Amino acid sequence: MMYSDIPSAQTLVLYFKSKGVKHIVISPGSRNAPLTISFTKNPYFRCYSIVDERCAAFFALGMAQQLQEPVAVVCTSGSALLNYYPAVAEAFYSDIPLIVVSADRPGYRIDIGDGQTIRQEHVLDRHIGYAANLKQDLTHAADKISNYGSNLLKESQGIVQRFNETEINKALETAFKQKAPVHINIPFEEPLYGKVQTPSVTIEKVRFETSDILDGQDLSALSKIWKESPRKMILVGVAQPGSMEVGIMEKLANDGNTLVFTETTSNLHHPDFFSSIDSIIAPIEKAKNSDELFKMLQPELLVTFGGLIVSKKIKAFLRKYKPKHHWHIDPKKAYNTFYCLTEHVKQSPNAFFNQLGISSTQASEYKTFWEGIKSKYEAKRETYLGQIPFSDFLVFDRLIKTIPKGYQVHLANSSTVRYAQLFPMHESLKVFCNRGTSGIDGSSSTAVGASVHCPEPTLLITGDLSFFYDSNALWNQYIRPDFRIILINNGGGGIFRILPGKEDTKEFAAYFETHHSLTAEHLAMMYGFGYDKAENETEVLQNMESFYEASAKPKILEIITPRELNNKILLGYFDFIS
Amino acid sequence: MMYSDIPSAQTLVLYFKSKGVKHIVISPGSRNAPLTISFTKNPYFRCYSIVDERCAAFFALGMAQQLQEPVAVVCTSGSALLNYYPAVAEAFYSDIPLIVVSADRPGYRIDIGDGQTIRQEHVLDRHIGYAANLKQDLTHAADKISNYGSNLLKESQGIVQRFNETEINKALETAFKQKAPVHINIPFEEPLYGKVQTPSVTIEKVRFETSDILDGQDLSALSKIWKESPRKMILVGVAQPGSMEVGIMEKLANDGNTLVFTETTSNLHHPDFFSSIDSIIAPIEKAKNSDELFKMLQPELLVTFGGLIVSKKIKAFLRKYKPKHHWHIDPKKAYNTFYCLTEHVKQSPNAFFNQLGISSTQASEYKTFWEGIKSKYEAKRETYLGQIPFSDFLVFDRLIKTIPKGYQVHLANSSTVRYAQLFPMHESLKVFCNRGTSGIDGSSSTAVGASVHCPEPTLLITGDLSFFYDSNALWNQYIRPDFRIILINNGGGGIFRILPGKEDTKEFAAYFETHHSLTAEHLAMMYGFGYDKAENETEVLQNMESFYEASAKPKILEIITPRELNNKILLGYFDFIS
Repeated sequence: MMYSDIPSAQTLVLYFKSKGVKHIVISPGSRNAPLTISFTKNPYFRCYSIVDERCAAFFALGMAQQLQEPVAVVCTSGSALLNYYPAVAEAFYSDIPLIVVSADRPGYRIDIGDGQTIRQEHVLDRHIGYAANLKQDLTHAADKISNYGSNLLKESQGIVQRFNETEINKALETAFKQKAPVHINIPFEEPLYGKVQTPSVTIEKVRFETSDILDGQDLSALSKIWKESPRKMILVGVAQPGSMEVGIMEKLANDGNTLVFTETTSNLHHPDFFSSIDSIIAPIEKAKNSDELFKMLQPELLVTFGGLIVSKKIKAFLRKYKPKHHWHIDPKKAYNTFYCLTEHVKQSPNAFFNQLGISSTQASEYKTFWEGIKSKYEAKRETYLGQIPFSDFLVFDRLIKTIPKGYQVHLANSSTVRYAQLFPMHESLKVFCNRGTSGIDGSSSTAVGASVHCPEPTLLITGDLSFFYDSNALWNQYIRPDFRIILINNGGGGIFRILPGKEDTKEFAAYFETHHSLTAEHLAMMYGFGYDKAENETEVLQNMESFYEASAKPKILEIITPRELNNKILLGYFDFIS
Repeated sequence: MMYSDIPSAQTLVLYFKSKGVKHIVISPGSRNAPLTISFTKNPYFRCYSIVDERCAAFFALGMAQQLQEPVAVVCTSGSALLNYYPAVAEAFYSDIPLIVVSADRPGYRIDIGDGQTIRQEHVLDRHIGYAANLKQDLTHAADKISNYGSNLLKESQGIVQRFNETEINKALETAFKQKAPVHINIPFEEPLYGKVQTPSVTIEKVRFETSDILDGQDLSALSKIWKESPRKMILVGVAQPGSMEVGIMEKLANDGNTLVFTETTSNLHHPDFFSSIDSIIAPIEKAKNSDELFKMLQPELLVTFGGLIVSKKIKAFLRKYKPKHHWHIDPKKAYNTFYCLTEHVKQSPNAFFNQLGISSTQASEYKTFWEGIKSKYEAKRETYLGQIPFSDFLVFDRLIKTIPKGYQVHLANSSTVRYAQLFPMHESLKVFCNRGTSGIDGSSSTAVGASVHCPEPTLLITGDLSFFYDSNALWNQYIRPDFRIILINNGGGGIFRILPGKEDTKEFAAYFETHHSLTAEHLAMMYGFGYDKAENETEVLQNMESFYEASAKPKILEIITPRELNNKILLGYFDFIS
């Protein structure tokens, strides 16, 4: 066991240990040497080395998402910290406790022309739960302030020490309790590489409660509304697998006035739930009696829980056909997504529904009508799949059907997650997607991070732009041999051919679709992945037979789909089921 | 010619055209469609499409650095903007006018659970010259505010229009006059793809002066100090090639009391100047009479100009042996790098030195003594080079000697630029390095951007960590066939073996050096580069014979150097010349 000889570095490391922050992702640097030394020479911590800070932060985010606990990233001074920002914003909106630790130069070295020096304090403030800006230790820099009397020095250092402890504690409390990303900035004076066997500081252990859920909230008024509402809709955003009790799901399914709408990322399965929202809404949009049908679907009471909603169509629908009541159930926050939020219930969904009192009732017309619609599009989807050529749509059907049970599945933004929404996922699959900011910037790194401690193997399904954007995700020594990537390469941003602006012009291909001819083959060789390519249905199905078998190396299956056909098949699906 | 039908998009594009912002680097997205349409369908603009926003911003920065004019980057909403941040910080500290334009959602769509939506306003504020947060057009969203009377609507839109014009103008003025990065954030309401042939807005052309240099400043007091100072040192930071008049350089060289210290990045050449600062300082650090020698080198008057200083050794020396006077000559800013700044002269260096009155004098002992030292280490360096084995040090000597005349040379951080400092560069070479933040994050992208409009070919010299960090730089369709990369691959961060913390432990190799076995071969194939590898001196020299010949494809030469020997040879050099 070794520590840096710098008190603030010791304090940080001791606090992390005492609170149970165990996983530390370190990017190389010299200014952060006091932290690197203290973390890597202390067997309590599991350290990971990743050079590209953008990837490092998404990797840590993936780990935190999977472990459901704070994970730290540690970088040197300068622009290194800024490369964390995309993942910090994702963590902020996805409620993931990413702890950002940045080594800094002492304040008097900032904005005087030193290298690797920027204004690190408060730089992430717009998307951070708490920013702890630690103070420079005085004893370590004692030779520089020898004009101080030694008592004064000791006293001042005591103040610095207490300040730093308080700030670290506040940051950790925010990470644990609010599941928010936090930033701890630590200025270090040279020399940076000094070591001691026993820390010179002792920390005061401040306990904080890890939960402040108000389980005792009186729900009688809400219970009354629930009971009396003839048309109820439950809409579930991003949620952890297994987060809802099976008994509650049963009860909700048996409530005859309630439709439960889930997304792939909700990780909530029941045969009576509506799991392909766009397949319900798109046909209504196209219908002649669209207004009438939307009014038939409009709930009186909308209850939401979980994170962000993927489907743009349901958002547009509920914003126009507003429910009378909208309750969001979440211990931490409630977005007014549909501009009609009436209640933020600060409880866990389980506690809330258990307390609410859900009764089993006969299915109302509201429910039976939409169940009929659902059966109809499900049947039509199968028919459609039987008659279409090889395309993104067909590929998603085939590959989702063949994912082995129990896998963790990561979906990249943005076409990938939207296609996946259209097909039923087996309930044993655990599905994740970075929907906090819905960026294409870190999906692969997140998946790799999430896979490290997952009992089951991980599959990443990604499009070509997301994949090449985050290609440094593969520059990672922690990729397990059972890690699998399915890359659906349609030669550019396929989403743009689906969006309203599509044109058959050079400008469109260059600046929206960003057409390219890259494949993943070279990256696979470079980073030691097995690689196979499929360009038609037969090759896809053949590959599926062996793709998930145990292997010495992780694998990429690249599926090349017809760029100019994909959007027609997708839009044709919505026409067909209408 | 086509424009978006959204007034604020038209306004922005018309202003850019009227002020001469011509080069626009666009990353794909839907929210920025009004801008992409307006820029790409207007032949005045030269547009570039780059998917990874981190690379896009460094690419634009490289172009702005080379063209000496503002260059814009345009992205969609969400985390895209955050990926610009590393380049924005570099631009901020390097005084490069990067114009960041981010499309945003309307304010009422922020923090309510929409996708690709973050808090974009002010997010770059810590490192930006000006943040223009434009307002949402009202006429475009007229259907949403139909409860407004139409006169009121028109009047309100007039206010929005004037506000936006003023803000765009302020941002452009800051970019042009202060050479600072600026951020323009524009919220767009859907629909985003509407087009018109004639813009609905006309802009008021506000002229701004492009220079506010105070050439008339009275320098008589400074002239007196200059004349009376027996020991003067001029130290030049990062500067554009050709920025100093030859006549002034001659005069400075003939001033017998003045030593001129330059760096590779100063782009200033005269046989009497001292161009390898560390070769002077390191031996003094090692000498028994170190204090005496430093006092002999200590200037009474220090005059600096240009950007940041690379050499840590000269910074440490001047901070300890402070000059009585330190003047920094720069129209914009002066860092108190040595904690003894006495004068910030807001002029161009040429204007300043012309006005100062430099007289030709006999060389003083101060000058002759240090010129003697210089001749000595130059001779010893040649001797040393004749007796050392293949290593980073040897490779830098050989490759710097063989760069064809007139090339633009980009140096990556951090070992690369430090090694390059030790060898004389031919005066026809134009040398650049991102020393604003000294990051390893965007050197390759910057070099590619800088090469696009350069009359001469470009050579990038990079280390392995910088190269792999910014590997997406190669995902770029604007790379010229005469673009050359020399990758010195020593299997990790060689700099860490030179810094004081070096250890022969697993932790050191994993978390500081981040040892790896990657090569660039697969990336070269993937992105259409010619590729060669050299693993000894003969192979290096053989490759040099053909490396710069005209070719159909750009080329990478990867030089594999002995990881565990390099630092010994470098440290041995400083011993040898001491």
